[in-house]
Amino acid sequence: MNDFNISALITPREKPATPLRVAVLGGGSFGTAMANLAARNGCETCMWIRDEKAAQDMQQSKRNKRYLPDFQLEETLQFSSKLEDVVPNRDIILVAIPSHSYRDVLKQIAPMISGQAIVSLTKGIEAETFCLMSDIIQQELPEVPFGVLSGPNLAKEIVANMPAGTVIASTSEALRNAVQTALHSALFRVFASSDVHGVELGGALKNIYAIAMGMGAAYNVGENTRSMLLTRALAEMSRFAVTLGANPLTFLGLSGVGDLFATCSSPLSRNYQIGYALGQGKNLEEAIAALGQTAEGINTIRQVSAQSRLLNVYMPITNALYEVIFEGKPPLGIALSLMQNGHRSDVEFVLPHEQV
Amino acid sequence: MNDFNISALITPREKPATPLRVAVLGGGSFGTAMANLAARNGCETCMWIRDEKAAQDMQQSKRNKRYLPDFQLEETLQFSSKLEDVVPNRDIILVAIPSHSYRDVLKQIAPMISGQAIVSLTKGIEAETFCLMSDIIQQELPEVPFGVLSGPNLAKEIVANMPAGTVIASTSEALRNAVQTALHSALFRVFASSDVHGVELGGALKNIYAIAMGMGAAYNVGENTRSMLLTRALAEMSRFAVTLGANPLTFLGLSGVGDLFATCSSPLSRNYQIGYALGQGKNLEEAIAALGQTAEGINTIRQVSAQSRLLNVYMPITNALYEVIFEGKPPLGIALSLMQNGHRSDVEFVLPHEQV
Repeated sequence: MNDFNISALITPREKPATPLRVAVLGGGSFGTAMANLAARNGCETCMWIRDEKAAQDMQQSKRNKRYLPDFQLEETLQFSSKLEDVVPNRDIILVAIPSHSYRDVLKQIAPMISGQAIVSLTKGIEAETFCLMSDIIQQELPEVPFGVLSGPNLAKEIVANMPAGTVIASTSEALRNAVQTALHSALFRVFASSDVHGVELGGALKNIYAIAMGMGAAYNVGENTRSMLLTRALAEMSRFAVTLGANPLTFLGLSGVGDLFATCSSPLSRNYQIGYALGQGKNLEEAIAALGQTAEGINTIRQVSAQSRLLNVYMPITNALYEVIFEGKPPLGIALSLMQNGHRSDVEFVLPHEQV
Repeated sequence: MNDFNISALITPREKPATPLRVAVLGGGSFGTAMANLAARNGCETCMWIRDEKAAQDMQQSKRNKRYLPDFQLEETLQFSSKLEDVVPNRDIILVAIPSHSYRDVLKQIAPMISGQAIVSLTKGIEAETFCLMSDIIQQELPEVPFGVLSGPNLAKEIVANMPAGTVIASTSEALRNAVQTALHSALFRVFASSDVHGVELGGALKNIYAIAMGMGAAYNVGENTRSMLLTRALAEMSRFAVTLGANPLTFLGLSGVGDLFATCSSPLSRNYQIGYALGQGKNLEEAIAALGQTAEGINTIRQVSAQSRLLNVYMPITNALYEVIFEGKPPLGIALSLMQNGHRSDVEFVLPHEQV
């Protein structure tokens, strides 16, 4: 067996004449992985960690002991718990804050924003408002150039130098170029898109279908069924996204089918395991008890199901999962009723359903 | 564990007043599975098996002992080795003949065609001519209504009543409806498309990428890399298909990403295993020797690589595989050079490469 991790290839690129100045807000695994790539690419990079002690420890040890304990980070990577040390005088601010604190952190940094571009690394939807992270950025920091980064990107694989790709979506070409310069390397390719909402929705919706895939696994479904489920998931994700102004073709890319494929191929993910427990006949409480925690997709189902009714978007899988999880309907009956939904178009953007 | 195979659900549908008359040409596993579904749906169904003795045996035993030995077929399903018994007076003729004999069989049935519709079940490309099966139908049976059926459809899972979906693509709505009536059931959903070449190319090209996925497995690639490979495969499949007049959105569907997902998730497939052997450093001869046979994708790579050069379509994965397999280039070096192909658009139909 060969190993794809060839350290000779990961020598730093030549530093640009004026190095980019990058801030990363949030101390999770993915933000840390991106900060490390930027530092390796010669960017002046500083991470903001809310907890002062943790920031000090990371500054000394150059390790993220909580989320990526096994990896030594770049010597040049800086850490601070003070936003005023991290945010001013930067070119790019990568925001990797969980969705429930996202708006709050943007409010805090708003007075420090002069010419920095904001790039969201967070996959999720704000509870109650149904805002995506790019919506929150536009509301809290109007006029600021912004983008979102999303793709099938397990942080542990990235810091282990296993090849990966991601998407930077922004309507600003300058911003896309800056993010590519900051993060692109021989083992991490940064592809570009102009469809911000499309890219964002791929990352936000995929967890729903990981639950469905886990539920299918409890019924021993075969490859045919798994493939049909993945494809019908894409159909309803893209249908929903198009209603919000996205381009359906975005779902052909890394942030769409790429991330969905990775998520649905991970039987160890929380979403998959909750789905599996539900498929075995457990109710939500029992499933959460069995797993020891809940999964993000459960909230996403509640949010998207409500939103799909408001917007009148046909999302049979999401709504079937809602009925199983929140209304106690039997999963098998629900799954089979999905199979009986009459003749449909395969891809409605090719052949509209009315013509089928 | 529950089991998804609920026999109560597979009772025959009500017979239509005038049952459809269906012929299936070819005695392989997928043709047999479709013939069995049609017979169960009340269609008058007859399979043509070239070998007289095999046809007689199947007529008596109602089993396809060679390809689906474990499954009892419908009692009403008929078998014959005489085209003149099978082809005339039918509504739909499903052609499940390997690509190398496809044209020959169509020539044989041409004199018997009056009003029948032709539906291809064969995934492949004719050697030398680079014709798809729909091209051959149009050349040999001009003026005949035609369609293609393709999707992630392992025959063994279908006859075992595991839920599956497929796509019927035709510009004729009447033909699409007839095929849905003949094959659709509670456990087999037939989706519709009008993009014949798009649907056909998904099935024809996917084997290339199963080889790439197998090669990746030899290097222990992670989920990030697998997802990137799947996505870049879709990018080049759809790019190639669009050059031949297809709609890129078709690749969001069952015949595109659905079939690709199923193929790339099957480590036991011949294509995957040949790729694995090549990734371990074996040359093509050694890989074929290790597997005991060749794989369809090897020919597809040769055909598509040549065609992509003729049509000037950028297909980096296919051409990299060509260099590894036919020019002895080292797989690791080739894979890494793929990673260094500069900044690209994620989905070029969203953001053209020129703007990246």
